[in-house]
Amino acid sequence: MSSLQITGLRTLPEVGAGADLSRLIVDATQKEAAGLQTGDVVVVTQKVVSKAEDRIVDLRTVKPSAFAKSLAQQWEKDPRQVEVILRETRRIVRMDQGVLIMETHHGFVCANAGVDRSNVPGDDNVSLLPVDPDRSAEEIRRGLGVEAAVIISDTFGRPWREGTTEVAIGVAGMDPLWDYRGRRDAYGYVLRSTEVAVADMLASAAGLVMEKASRVPVAIVRGFPFETGEGGGRRLLRAPTKDLFR
Amino acid sequence: MSSLQITGLRTLPEVGAGADLSRLIVDATQKEAAGLQTGDVVVVTQKVVSKAEDRIVDLRTVKPSAFAKSLAQQWEKDPRQVEVILRETRRIVRMDQGVLIMETHHGFVCANAGVDRSNVPGDDNVSLLPVDPDRSAEEIRRGLGVEAAVIISDTFGRPWREGTTEVAIGVAGMDPLWDYRGRRDAYGYVLRSTEVAVADMLASAAGLVMEKASRVPVAIVRGFPFETGEGGGRRLLRAPTKDLFR
Repeated sequence: MSSLQITGLRTLPEVGAGADLSRLIVDATQKEAAGLQTGDVVVVTQKVVSKAEDRIVDLRTVKPSAFAKSLAQQWEKDPRQVEVILRETRRIVRMDQGVLIMETHHGFVCANAGVDRSNVPGDDNVSLLPVDPDRSAEEIRRGLGVEAAVIISDTFGRPWREGTTEVAIGVAGMDPLWDYRGRRDAYGYVLRSTEVAVADMLASAAGLVMEKASRVPVAIVRGFPFETGEGGGRRLLRAPTKDLFR
Repeated sequence: MSSLQITGLRTLPEVGAGADLSRLIVDATQKEAAGLQTGDVVVVTQKVVSKAEDRIVDLRTVKPSAFAKSLAQQWEKDPRQVEVILRETRRIVRMDQGVLIMETHHGFVCANAGVDRSNVPGDDNVSLLPVDPDRSAEEIRRGLGVEAAVIISDTFGRPWREGTTEVAIGVAGMDPLWDYRGRRDAYGYVLRSTEVAVADMLASAAGLVMEKASRVPVAIVRGFPFETGEGGGRRLLRAPTKDLFR
């Protein structure tokens, strides 16, 4: 039966620094999805992981550099926030029309190097991406008590298309990329270039039950036959030498 | 209850030119998902729509131009297939490392202008994208007999990240883009730039139950509270003047 069930968890309490996310997820799943089961994929938003790991910066403590001030003035941004963005940045990919597309120290290419003001308590607080989202995913996974996979999701824009989708910035317990190269299609034709980013597709599927303005930071995908695999979300990052758009 | 069910249809017969997709979908849904229901989102792969609309080209009938031959030789491709790709192309966005990233006449930016050899019967046949995928989606929707939304999905790569995901190239009966700008998050912060490509996320979610090498060309997403809206999948295309990566 090729059927999936996706359930957004509504009863997670407010998450603060040091929170035990695994335990909170197990408790909420018991109330809302008949308990966590072997084979579930647990999708957790970056925001709640960053809060638990205290990756929150109070902008009142930030002294912007001259470069940050200059950029901020040019694009009407908060110079303190631009300073935090630059600290998270390995390389500036594009800087135009008020948009900062950055490559982070992890290798993610995204707006503002993942620094974000939304869904963080406190008027002057911004959140940073986790230091190592694959490790964050693995730590959550270990605490679940069943053989489940964990994906840390974040909201990224993309070239050429309007609107954001969700991507997997951290992955544990599953192969994030399915390789169909060499397999045959339904007519016997040998597929040549198809690798499927299943972890990103799972992140987007989970995003459908996580409304932006509400507190649904975790979703359970049940019924997806993932394969166990190594390498985590890092495997979804294209090497700069293979990339035509940097 | 924020819960979704996604079911891939396994009993659709082989689709040929002129097939009545609406009827085939209604019949299969009766067998596999208790009948189509108001509020369902029906996701149909591009390949099956292109077959029904006879957007199949027999490469034996194609005479490659000198330019097509030159490109084909440089990248070890079939000159007849390159010719078909060039005919579908409005503008070449990138041409490197054997990859042709094209802007199609519709405005989609994708590899090979959507010309594809996989999952098409006949050794010399390739499929083209539908002429007007929004119209294709609307025509399918009208034949369903219930108030459902329809998405035509296709498999696109993207910069910076490995692996493909599914995107919505045609949309009918729903708003493909949710605009959160001006709304407040859970802490009262006014969201400034969030537009969510829900149609693309639905396409990716449906893709999770459509294996590449099997015949599952349609999936039903049940429980997603879409909003009706105009404009179709075209609204997901970023205007070239707003795009930093062409």
